[in-house]
Amino acid sequence: MIDPVNKLNLSGDRFDVVYHVKGGRVEVDLIAQDICIEQTIEFPADLISADDDIRNHIIGQVKDIKQLASEVWEVTISFAIEVTGFTLPQLINVIFGNISIKPNIRIAKLDNLPQSLLGHFRGPRFGSAGLRKMVDQPTRALLCTALKPMGLSSKGLAQQAYEFAKGGMDFIKDDHGLANQPFSPFRERVELCAQAVERANQETGYKCRYVPSLSSPFETLMDDAYFAKECNSGGLLVAPGLVGFDTMRALADDDDLGLPILGHPSFIGSYAISPNDGLSFYALFGQLMRLAGADASIFPSYGGRFSFSKDECMSIADGTQADMSHIKTILPTPGGGMTLDRVTELHDFYGSEMMFLIGGALHRGDHGLIESCNGFREAVENA
Amino acid sequence: MIDPVNKLNLSGDRFDVVYHVKGGRVEVDLIAQDICIEQTIEFPADLISADDDIRNHIIGQVKDIKQLASEVWEVTISFAIEVTGFTLPQLINVIFGNISIKPNIRIAKLDNLPQSLLGHFRGPRFGSAGLRKMVDQPTRALLCTALKPMGLSSKGLAQQAYEFAKGGMDFIKDDHGLANQPFSPFRERVELCAQAVERANQETGYKCRYVPSLSSPFETLMDDAYFAKECNSGGLLVAPGLVGFDTMRALADDDDLGLPILGHPSFIGSYAISPNDGLSFYALFGQLMRLAGADASIFPSYGGRFSFSKDECMSIADGTQADMSHIKTILPTPGGGMTLDRVTELHDFYGSEMMFLIGGALHRGDHGLIESCNGFREAVENA
Repeated sequence: MIDPVNKLNLSGDRFDVVYHVKGGRVEVDLIAQDICIEQTIEFPADLISADDDIRNHIIGQVKDIKQLASEVWEVTISFAIEVTGFTLPQLINVIFGNISIKPNIRIAKLDNLPQSLLGHFRGPRFGSAGLRKMVDQPTRALLCTALKPMGLSSKGLAQQAYEFAKGGMDFIKDDHGLANQPFSPFRERVELCAQAVERANQETGYKCRYVPSLSSPFETLMDDAYFAKECNSGGLLVAPGLVGFDTMRALADDDDLGLPILGHPSFIGSYAISPNDGLSFYALFGQLMRLAGADASIFPSYGGRFSFSKDECMSIADGTQADMSHIKTILPTPGGGMTLDRVTELHDFYGSEMMFLIGGALHRGDHGLIESCNGFREAVENA
Repeated sequence: MIDPVNKLNLSGDRFDVVYHVKGGRVEVDLIAQDICIEQTIEFPADLISADDDIRNHIIGQVKDIKQLASEVWEVTISFAIEVTGFTLPQLINVIFGNISIKPNIRIAKLDNLPQSLLGHFRGPRFGSAGLRKMVDQPTRALLCTALKPMGLSSKGLAQQAYEFAKGGMDFIKDDHGLANQPFSPFRERVELCAQAVERANQETGYKCRYVPSLSSPFETLMDDAYFAKECNSGGLLVAPGLVGFDTMRALADDDDLGLPILGHPSFIGSYAISPNDGLSFYALFGQLMRLAGADASIFPSYGGRFSFSKDECMSIADGTQADMSHIKTILPTPGGGMTLDRVTELHDFYGSEMMFLIGGALHRGDHGLIESCNGFREAVENA
């Protein structure tokens, strides 16, 4: 037995995690209890006194179990805010750390996050409104494209960036596979591309922003981010799967850096695509991206090279917009094989509170990139 | 068309990723081609000249497609080493970044990694042999336990650490849920637990090592690691899912820090448990943990609270031991609900090249922790 009996000085504030659990009724009760233990004390509850605060408050508490379908249940579990240590890594640890290893448990959403917890997270620095303001586009859907393909020289990519900017893109991001390769070293590329976009902006009067991909090693990541800022980059493309969710959060929180973040889904798809495990599209690409400071959430739209359904895409958009107190809403940014002829359809689907991401398709056809971009912009303006 | 034609100065060295792909024959050919593009240029190949090095060398190359079972194929794809930028985040990006978002593709293993790539990774600083040396146990399986439950005061945890050390444990780790919570702040806990273990070591002559859990925010993580070292901690428990694989790698690579790393599976289980997606147990808990610097790979053994099968556990053990040039072998560390009565069985299964992790079960029974630990140690010595 744990001795003496622990009396903790807890606030009493709790937050909810809504899980979808697969199984029969008896099984679900056991799984629910298991989540409560596994995500907190990982210890036999019977070895803790009945009047111990660890047993009564630290262990998760089943708030509700509701049947959604045959063998599918919505299980709501509350946790004391203190178990999160008020940090993102430990919040992730509590909501899905060890149970990520158990099948048939999926996070549907985080819910009822009290201000006493949320207040420790700043979320996106700019959010949708901030991104709109910096490119002077208060209402229409924003336009994003990507520098590619990997293997092009920094000079070649900068020329591409120049043409994209001339064509009226709002954001030009590096392809997420552009890192610090010998054919286009990070600092060389960032300097040339930022200059190219600045030159185009001077010619056009647009406020296009160049967004380098930042996937640097831990030791140089912050320095590289500052280098990008010094070059007048307009943001950072960050994949939390590659550098860590909390690393992205730290980049967003850095007041001196102060750059917007486009969140990229590289390496985190596995959390979403298995229907009975991981995190829902809503929680992962919406809520978690926002808590981790992304100002836009890039994801592969339905109907492109990837397999997301319309419902899944809409739930991502919902997750980017849902009320989370002071945590700003962000722009859902569907990409992954989008084409110009789908602009109207996608606009009808997502509405104007989004950012289009069209990459490779702008290179198609006999005309140049500038003309392709003009077509893209006009299609969005007329959608 | 991409113009002019790119002539890159590549080494010609390539490495292989072996994927398991689900689907019919025609589908698999398409998926294989898709991986080659998606993980590199993300660009229509037909817009690149036939004699361009991007088309001929940067795009992944299908080396082999072999049928494993009905609708299951082993697809081997090679990538130019240069596309990795010789960093861990970009290596992860290339092997599984975007295709993590596509169903029915699973990494079976990394293969044929040339020294020109591997040489950029130091891997585990100590590895199995190093861990054995630091606790003076050259041959028998090592003994690890965990401080728990969450909610206990630092003083209570330190008392527990003292008793575990007196009982002859080799490594005493924080439970991975111990972070920087108000009931046991990180620095207070680390100081007290490290002192407690040191005191016990002076009394016993053992070389027990205290291993605090490090899941600090990005801004303080390295400082907290150094604080742990200054307190004479004997290692760090790091969950790459919580802080990032490359953050763990940076902790392992830091020469001034020089602490061994126990790698924890929190939040990365989702990669392994869906049989057709993600990464194999071998690749994730073996190869990737080693590339990211873990000296031991903790995983939930078959027959405990989790669902891993015997085969899956054995493939993890294989992944920790397989030849990877200078990348050291590490200790598979099965835990997750292990009990004393299973020591002989587990020892027969894994062999002595492993570390036992038994936590909660040591608290069972009428006797104290020291006696439980003695029983644990004797069981392993006699196994």
